Amino acid sequence: MPHSSEITVGLCQYAPEVGAVEGNRRLGSDWINRAADQGAELVLLPELAASGYTFQSELEAAASSQATDGPTILEWASICRRRSVWAAAGFAESGRDGRYNSAVLLGPDGVVGVYRKAHLFNDEKLYFLPGDLGFPVFDLPFGRLGMLICYDLWFPEAARILALKGADVILVPTNWVANFRRRPADERGWTMGDYACVGAATQNQIFIAAADRIGEERGVEFVGCSCLVGPDGSMLAGPASLDAEALITVKIDTAQARRAKRRTPRNDTLADRRPELYAELAAGLTETSR
Amino acid sequence: MPHSSEITVGLCQYAPEVGAVEGNRRLGSDWINRAADQGAELVLLPELAASGYTFQSELEAAASSQATDGPTILEWASICRRRSVWAAAGFAESGRDGRYNSAVLLGPDGVVGVYRKAHLFNDEKLYFLPGDLGFPVFDLPFGRLGMLICYDLWFPEAARILALKGADVILVPTNWVANFRRRPADERGWTMGDYACVGAATQNQIFIAAADRIGEERGVEFVGCSCLVGPDGSMLAGPASLDAEALITVKIDTAQARRAKRRTPRNDTLADRRPELYAELAAGLTETSR
Repeated sequence: MPHSSEITVGLCQYAPEVGAVEGNRRLGSDWINRAADQGAELVLLPELAASGYTFQSELEAAASSQATDGPTILEWASICRRRSVWAAAGFAESGRDGRYNSAVLLGPDGVVGVYRKAHLFNDEKLYFLPGDLGFPVFDLPFGRLGMLICYDLWFPEAARILALKGADVILVPTNWVANFRRRPADERGWTMGDYACVGAATQNQIFIAAADRIGEERGVEFVGCSCLVGPDGSMLAGPASLDAEALITVKIDTAQARRAKRRTPRNDTLADRRPELYAELAAGLTETSR
Repeated sequence: MPHSSEITVGLCQYAPEVGAVEGNRRLGSDWINRAADQGAELVLLPELAASGYTFQSELEAAASSQATDGPTILEWASICRRRSVWAAAGFAESGRDGRYNSAVLLGPDGVVGVYRKAHLFNDEKLYFLPGDLGFPVFDLPFGRLGMLICYDLWFPEAARILALKGADVILVPTNWVANFRRRPADERGWTMGDYACVGAATQNQIFIAAADRIGEERGVEFVGCSCLVGPDGSMLAGPASLDAEALITVKIDTAQARRAKRRTPRNDTLADRRPELYAELAAGLTETSR
């Protein structure tokens, strides 16, 4: 286990299957082990890795959900303990008040914390409640981490709040879909998701690690292209391919995120903010605003 | 003049010269005319196009500044009237309370409005006051416009507020510098500024048009790479080269910015925000946040 600010991140890009709870558990276990075999100390699985994505009924969503002490979480936590690694993974969470599209952070000592997706995309609104935990950060031996899930990246407020809380790295379990461009990836092989990661990293001088799924479920096509971006906005690893499994490992030094914020002798990129000009961001939409 | 939501934007990339107020006036006039000759209806000049960038004394900054009815603004406005075009350009503004790094929006009827740079970069803090006008939008016949200047793009709050106010296009007069990477442009010829534009466009489903300067002033190197990005994050024109003059014209339909916000039957990207979770953005940095 690392005692410095250096850590090897492993991004796992594969295809969970909707409804196949036990299959997805085994699949996730295999990928955490494979990543650890390749030297990863912090493993990232996709959004809803424990359940699959395209629910079509309340019954199906309920049957694919579990609490943070459910069997999939317990099994993945036991692998983290055995391998002395951390892992973050998406799962459908049965909470006290309802179901959430969540990400769990696991470590050698079990569950570190949970993030509940704040911004729900399309049909997710039928099966999940919007996240009610805000944007928490977690202090690990190698740095401070936050988590966001997929569509959250299109809300610059979210990554910014994590940066303000001192996050060095944002982990993004995601299920990017192919809806919004004629060709999901451009001539360079980047999707909108990759650009969203670079944008948020550039704005916040922070590492962004995104593990996407691949494959197709019930007519919804996922676009892979998992990536890891550095605090100067450089693409450090990936994007992986659109449609093939991938395991990307890359060593990062989380301290770079802090150093990158002291940009010139007169600039500190977070202290240079003008919060007195930002009141509109915490207000709702008004009549005149659209 | 256009009566629809379509408009041809002209990005002017060239090298103003610090202190050469009359030379910069003529240079800007030439570029507005050249852009109009090539069909541009909305012309964008770089940051501090009227003054140059690297002031070294208060005296020099004062001598290079003018009010919004100063001679350079008047001359450029007269060209807009004669050519029936709009133009946005950076200038050092002598305001009632002090000097600002500003952008003026001009049209066939004169001055439409002014934006004062909210986030000052490095030595700019010695010669300018931080902008005190917030983030205004301006309704023109072809759509709603906002302006940001250079370092503002690293503050996602700014573009977001313009999007919340219904801006379709953000004009960015800029002076991107080469400080932050060993090589200012990557193997694709993009600078951090280009990625910042794509990030803000992707997050806000908005057009971003950035006109950068080139050349070197007193040891500060500027990196060109002017660009125009569409509301799906696609690079529609540019980036121009790192070091050569460029005039890029591209026709856009500002209505695309509004359509792009209705992303699925269940998603409206601005209505999907969770302002109740964003209180931290309008608060200052706290003891515990870094």
